[in-house]
Amino acid sequence: MTPCTFCRIASGELEAPVVFQTSTCLAFLDHRPLFPGHCLLIPRIHYETLGDLPGELAAELFADARSLSLVVEEALGAEGSFMAINNRVSQSVPHVHVHIVPRRKGDGLKGFFWPRRKYGDAAEVEAVRAALAEAWQRRK
Amino acid sequence: MTPCTFCRIASGELEAPVVFQTSTCLAFLDHRPLFPGHCLLIPRIHYETLGDLPGELAAELFADARSLSLVVEEALGAEGSFMAINNRVSQSVPHVHVHIVPRRKGDGLKGFFWPRRKYGDAAEVEAVRAALAEAWQRRK
Repeated sequence: MTPCTFCRIASGELEAPVVFQTSTCLAFLDHRPLFPGHCLLIPRIHYETLGDLPGELAAELFADARSLSLVVEEALGAEGSFMAINNRVSQSVPHVHVHIVPRRKGDGLKGFFWPRRKYGDAAEVEAVRAALAEAWQRRK
Repeated sequence: MTPCTFCRIASGELEAPVVFQTSTCLAFLDHRPLFPGHCLLIPRIHYETLGDLPGELAAELFADARSLSLVVEEALGAEGSFMAINNRVSQSVPHVHVHIVPRRKGDGLKGFFWPRRKYGDAAEVEAVRAALAEAWQRRK
């Protein structure tokens, strides 16, 4: 018995409104949606975050996420869509999940990406940029 | 001359604090970040939304997005990260871009995914689920 809610949905132990299933992934409706049609897409196997996923599984998950973004727009007559992943912070269930949400102009999420900040000066921008660029190089 | 800001950044015509470049993608700092280190990852070629991207290019973009989520956490000592794409609605620049944002507990974005709603009843859930499941099947 796993205590992970999403593993239990993937195994069929817990019921959920399933949108589709593949051999590796599963999409179902979030029970507390931002808007009706808000889907959660998960890998069947338990991994906590996006960074923990093996590359091949991440590729399958994202291919399905891309298709599902078109499906929510088409099926629900939405004007756009929103896709997001929270890794650890603000992540309600520690089993990686992609939010796919239908969007409409004036749906009330206009201020979603606010508040934005400004960098103090060009030196701060460069310090942050260099730290990221170096960490990227170390990964290659 | 393209009027697309991100195409002009990709071509080098406009300067930006670039974190990394590959033959197909480019990551740079958002000039109005949610938090310092907030990156935008784009394909060099112009496509408006995630759904418009060819599958192979989407796969490359997401492989880089996954790596960059680890890089922002590691380089900036963040506790987590947030990855998001706005398609059309809330999309400031009509050239597909992935937001990769470092997150910390108590950073003030706790309420990010609110307000959540509830479905009216089980019939509403089933109607939405069925519409999505059918649209998914039509795509296969």
